[in-house]
Amino acid sequence: MPETKTKKSEDFNEWYNEIVELADLCDKRYPIKGMNVWKPYGWKLMNNVDSLTRHEMEKTNHQEVYFPLLIPESFFKKEEEHIEGFGSEVYWITHAGTNKLEERWLLRPTSETAMYPIFSLWIRSHSDLPLKTFQIVNTFRYETKQTRAFIRVREIHFFEAHTCHTDFEDAERQVKEDKEIADRLLKKLCLPYIFSKRPEWDKFAGAHYTISIDVLMPSGRTLQIGSIHQYKDNFAKPYEISYETEEGTHTYCHQTTYGMSERLLGALIGVHGDNKGLVMPPAVAPIQVVIIPIIFKGKEKNVLDVCNKLHKKLTEDNIRSHVDDREITPGNKYYDWELKGVPLRVEIGPKDVEKKEIVIVQRNTGKKRSILQEKAEKTIKNELDTIANTLFTNAKKLLDENMQRVHTVDEAKERKGIIEIPWCGNKDCAIEIENILEGNTLGEPIDKGTCDYSCPICRGAAKTWMRFAKMY
Amino acid sequence: MPETKTKKSEDFNEWYNEIVELADLCDKRYPIKGMNVWKPYGWKLMNNVDSLTRHEMEKTNHQEVYFPLLIPESFFKKEEEHIEGFGSEVYWITHAGTNKLEERWLLRPTSETAMYPIFSLWIRSHSDLPLKTFQIVNTFRYETKQTRAFIRVREIHFFEAHTCHTDFEDAERQVKEDKEIADRLLKKLCLPYIFSKRPEWDKFAGAHYTISIDVLMPSGRTLQIGSIHQYKDNFAKPYEISYETEEGTHTYCHQTTYGMSERLLGALIGVHGDNKGLVMPPAVAPIQVVIIPIIFKGKEKNVLDVCNKLHKKLTEDNIRSHVDDREITPGNKYYDWELKGVPLRVEIGPKDVEKKEIVIVQRNTGKKRSILQEKAEKTIKNELDTIANTLFTNAKKLLDENMQRVHTVDEAKERKGIIEIPWCGNKDCAIEIENILEGNTLGEPIDKGTCDYSCPICRGAAKTWMRFAKMY
Repeated sequence: MPETKTKKSEDFNEWYNEIVELADLCDKRYPIKGMNVWKPYGWKLMNNVDSLTRHEMEKTNHQEVYFPLLIPESFFKKEEEHIEGFGSEVYWITHAGTNKLEERWLLRPTSETAMYPIFSLWIRSHSDLPLKTFQIVNTFRYETKQTRAFIRVREIHFFEAHTCHTDFEDAERQVKEDKEIADRLLKKLCLPYIFSKRPEWDKFAGAHYTISIDVLMPSGRTLQIGSIHQYKDNFAKPYEISYETEEGTHTYCHQTTYGMSERLLGALIGVHGDNKGLVMPPAVAPIQVVIIPIIFKGKEKNVLDVCNKLHKKLTEDNIRSHVDDREITPGNKYYDWELKGVPLRVEIGPKDVEKKEIVIVQRNTGKKRSILQEKAEKTIKNELDTIANTLFTNAKKLLDENMQRVHTVDEAKERKGIIEIPWCGNKDCAIEIENILEGNTLGEPIDKGTCDYSCPICRGAAKTWMRFAKMY
Repeated sequence: MPETKTKKSEDFNEWYNEIVELADLCDKRYPIKGMNVWKPYGWKLMNNVDSLTRHEMEKTNHQEVYFPLLIPESFFKKEEEHIEGFGSEVYWITHAGTNKLEERWLLRPTSETAMYPIFSLWIRSHSDLPLKTFQIVNTFRYETKQTRAFIRVREIHFFEAHTCHTDFEDAERQVKEDKEIADRLLKKLCLPYIFSKRPEWDKFAGAHYTISIDVLMPSGRTLQIGSIHQYKDNFAKPYEISYETEEGTHTYCHQTTYGMSERLLGALIGVHGDNKGLVMPPAVAPIQVVIIPIIFKGKEKNVLDVCNKLHKKLTEDNIRSHVDDREITPGNKYYDWELKGVPLRVEIGPKDVEKKEIVIVQRNTGKKRSILQEKAEKTIKNELDTIANTLFTNAKKLLDENMQRVHTVDEAKERKGIIEIPWCGNKDCAIEIENILEGNTLGEPIDKGTCDYSCPICRGAAKTWMRFAKMY
């Protein structure tokens, strides 16, 4: 079988670029850096991820809304930390037609400052709470670092949930629900992850605290694919989001947000793919099962009939399948669909038809076996589950092998991946560790546990374990 | 039953604004004029329309793509007529963070100039054709006229199909297919429409010809809800979209586009709504059937059981239903759901349970009858079809009564709606008729037929009938 020019294990980043291109997910030749064209296969994959997200949001009573893309500068500037955090990354509209605008507008980098002035109109009384909304939109950030498809782009496909609550405790319950949602979603993408509470100096601009959701890529770097923020009343105050309590007093709401982006695609491409191309988690694969008739000179009509019949049955069972009846060799078809990462291949030839069997081949392992036609749907369903489980297990092994606790900086220097080191709570010490490891402070484990060691920099008592890693 | 303050028949435009607001489709208080917040109910309705569109696109082998929002000025300026047509309506980005951009970027007003330079990379040979793509995105136009929810906005939810073909004839076949798609879609929205070939001076900037799709609103004005354009090779030449023929020569593609927008919502609100609120066509209604338990003091648990059981069955039959078990009076519930335009209401009280019946009430006619529980799903399905048919028939009657052929301007002045008048083909004559009627030139019927009369302005022989109407 043909393989990628670059091997995944040798140069992960180059391999990543190569398969994104070969698998036809996006076109990077658009003339604005970091703004790529989504091609049909990539867009379908993204839409399937969005569908899972929408499903989770529906189950948890979030309402989908859509807020305008453009935000007046005066709206944007109401929360000081927020503008400080985002000010250098936004795109400004100054003219409409030939007219200069009276006030500049910016493209949403995230939607707090578009939504919250309106939330202050929607929320009057405790009976309006909790308000649980979300939207799936594109956001815009002027990235100056090197761009990379799905991982670092300037037009970002983005999911953002925004909620308002009566008090801090109810907002905390929302954070808990968000963590559960993330867990269910990432399971479906076969992606193990870690939650880390970001250090104070690296939390979301304006947040009370930030929990980042990170995936370990095979390069040993972490990729932040989402985050959950507790805002307390930090935004509610400047945006005047308050309500009348049951007792008739007025008080500010507490808020949370939960965001994820197209980086989910970057993660699943990077974690699951191999030297033959993509490997799609079954839950989001645009095609879950490709059916390939093994026919020569197009004679065997009954083979095609069996293929089409299977396709029909799978469709009725809500399994996304496709019969590839192109006039090219089966080998060429295998190559194409392996590149596209279709989780399961079905081969049906004249002999299989005689024996009332079909052949199934797992994309991730290459395992091949014959099964009875009459049990096809059930076996295929199970096989897709098996594939998903294997993908998750392998990725979990990668994560577990590359996340380690050490007590000294010297030990840390010898390890790859995510390192947990005792930390005293001082920013200076963390920055020093960052410099030594040439990595970043990822954050504390959220289920801390105690840490009875001392900070390897200042020798003070450690307050917690702190994670460090090289990040995308 | 409570009714809108403004009666539809008395002041259509004011009535329209009132029900958009009361039914909670969008919030117009966002501080940028013409950029509204989509509220959950409105957004669901729009998504349902988008789903129908996607379904039609899939059936006709169009591929969904997503092209970047931002377009470099140099891309935009390649086709002269196009920039002339859109130049005064676009929003310009001049700065990113604190940096001034080297080249200005604009927000897509439509995506020809973003897509076509990339199409020229995608298309190499006749085997790449036809290329049939579409996207559903928001577009941005700096409207200076009075804005109106869904009808005239500055951030426009937009569907745009873009196709490339080997020659003019194949592009013509695409135009034909687009007309068939429009017909199927608009049937589902219960909206009768007319196709008109726009006059030369009012076709899409850069097009060879434009077919507009117009709906007659009850105010007597037409609303253009979509258009189909034959581009010939007008864009292919400046954007260099060419291909190698089977014979090995190189030639330019012929192109078409087909666009529709959130105006579809404006049309269905305006055409079907009444003084009690919205009336949703069943195919896109966010809730098709609302089930209301008639219970007093919450005692009758068996009533709720029957409601929930029906909800479950309808869900299995892919009918979108909702049990309203709020603790308010049934009357208040009726009011709410009539306002939201839910096509069918089911009432179930203790007596109905005894008789194994349910009561169904049509939103559009108010007709009420009892049916057997055991036949509920089937009867409800038929009832939704009946409602759709009635909505279409009534709207068709409105259109037919308000579209008339006349031979003189004096006759035309006495009529409302759409007037067809003999026309010589001279722009000056059409403009004069516009001035006299205080209306616009809509375009020629596309199934022209001959017109044996003379132009009422210049007395020359008429080339065709020409439609005039007041337009939104």
